[in-house]
Amino acid sequence: MNEHLESWREGAAKDAIRDFVARIGDETSSEFVPVDERVAVFDNDGTLWCEKPMPIQVGFILKRFAAMADQDPALRDRQPWQAAYTHDFDWLSQALVKHYNGDDSDLKVLLGGVQQAFGGMNVEKYASEVEEFLASAAHPTLKRPYRECTFQPMVELLRYLEDNGFSTYIASGGDRDFMRPAAVPLYGIPPDRVIGSSFGLQYVEDEHGSAVMYKAGLDVFDDGPEKPVRIWSRVGRRPVLAGGNANGDIPMLNFAGGPARPALRLIVLHDDAEREFDYVAGAERALERAGDQGWTVVSVKNDWTTVFA
Amino acid sequence: MNEHLESWREGAAKDAIRDFVARIGDETSSEFVPVDERVAVFDNDGTLWCEKPMPIQVGFILKRFAAMADQDPALRDRQPWQAAYTHDFDWLSQALVKHYNGDDSDLKVLLGGVQQAFGGMNVEKYASEVEEFLASAAHPTLKRPYRECTFQPMVELLRYLEDNGFSTYIASGGDRDFMRPAAVPLYGIPPDRVIGSSFGLQYVEDEHGSAVMYKAGLDVFDDGPEKPVRIWSRVGRRPVLAGGNANGDIPMLNFAGGPARPALRLIVLHDDAEREFDYVAGAERALERAGDQGWTVVSVKNDWTTVFA
Repeated sequence: MNEHLESWREGAAKDAIRDFVARIGDETSSEFVPVDERVAVFDNDGTLWCEKPMPIQVGFILKRFAAMADQDPALRDRQPWQAAYTHDFDWLSQALVKHYNGDDSDLKVLLGGVQQAFGGMNVEKYASEVEEFLASAAHPTLKRPYRECTFQPMVELLRYLEDNGFSTYIASGGDRDFMRPAAVPLYGIPPDRVIGSSFGLQYVEDEHGSAVMYKAGLDVFDDGPEKPVRIWSRVGRRPVLAGGNANGDIPMLNFAGGPARPALRLIVLHDDAEREFDYVAGAERALERAGDQGWTVVSVKNDWTTVFA
Repeated sequence: MNEHLESWREGAAKDAIRDFVARIGDETSSEFVPVDERVAVFDNDGTLWCEKPMPIQVGFILKRFAAMADQDPALRDRQPWQAAYTHDFDWLSQALVKHYNGDDSDLKVLLGGVQQAFGGMNVEKYASEVEEFLASAAHPTLKRPYRECTFQPMVELLRYLEDNGFSTYIASGGDRDFMRPAAVPLYGIPPDRVIGSSFGLQYVEDEHGSAVMYKAGLDVFDDGPEKPVRIWSRVGRRPVLAGGNANGDIPMLNFAGGPARPALRLIVLHDDAEREFDYVAGAERALERAGDQGWTVVSVKNDWTTVFA
């Protein structure tokens, strides 16, 4: 069997992965897990692909805002279109900083723009816009296509797990319908195994047929304690392996395993300023939990010989 | 290849199924559908198993009410426990009749009982209660175990479709977590391919671990226009084949296919008082739509040589 972990350096993280897969696959072990119950869930942004300097979906939204402002001059002096049109990334990052400081006024302006950009669009049209974006857009600082910003070692891990009987899922705070068209080509994960945040949807019927289209507004923000709820709702099983990189992944990692099953919990630590980025902001509690409870920390710098696919 | 349709009589319905599967599987046809996109969705109550004289889940709920009243005498003169404890099916059917006539007062009493019966229970415990019920409980008039109330021709259809590259899903108004433990043994459908109504869930963590458990109250009632929304949310594809039996299935059937794909739409017509039941109440508009738009009506009496598994 191809081991699929070629981009992982020998060390504690690679050992933990191989040992866990061997243990749960050993029918003579008390930790044996039948194939049907080998469910692995992974966060996406910062776990399967790069999330700095901004989540890839923000690039998609900004491109759409800029296109709207191209077509409609009246939008060019209104936020959030103005910021996208003039490449005023300060306004955008300040909107997020304000949010972290308890002031959601600019964040609401931003989300209002998202609703105007995508509300009333049907799901197939949205998927084709995402495909088009990922076929062409590039990362602003790494100078490579976004579609080459996936973490090669994690893609190898997905294949390794599948070869060992696992069903692999994406369970991310990111927008489910943004990730789906990417998940097939980038990760080999089909759309029914993508779980994430979702915009409200409605069914509409007219004389030409029927469609499912976006309503204005978010339906579920799939982060923190919502992650295990959504995983259960979608999968109907507790995962035995979970991978994340941020505080919002703690409940998902903690939910893995359970009374009757073992678990492997992976936290990706971004500590490689040279090849990717170096940050712990937003991951402090997850890393603390990893230290306290023996979760496996995966160091980008030390555990991966190659970072990007 | 085993054709798997042994319990289907030769006729229009069987022909429509075989012809559709042949057409979408023919790579030289404009109607060819790649394997990845061969999604089939089926309602459960009245489509895959018997729904008369009451949905099987109602039997489960009544059994739980009766057990609660056994343990707590104070419940025995309070509805809905009293009706369950004294086998007062009139009260229960009147609650539903009142609902159809616009008076939800008794229905609220019934749902209040459901919340008290299952609120705070974790999902694994609920699944094991369902398994126990289906292992032992019997249909009140057909005098056979509930687990033998599945429609044999429909089980054959699931296998036939899967052999031809389809992914089969249950997309029912019934409670997802009630159907899941049944779906594996009865239909060979795994829990991640069961879509349905759902009770609210929450993640809880304590020093012994973590769980997902029911909150009081329904989260989504998965019927009518909600069905296509949930199918998209869960599957991420439009189905090409949909089977139902009631008005609440119309949007799901109508959503099948779409601009770029053909569709087969099946409506099970319950017209066999001798072997099953004979009724159209609740299916009038679906049957009318079938007549207007050439949907395939499956007559229990004429199209099935055997009804039950």
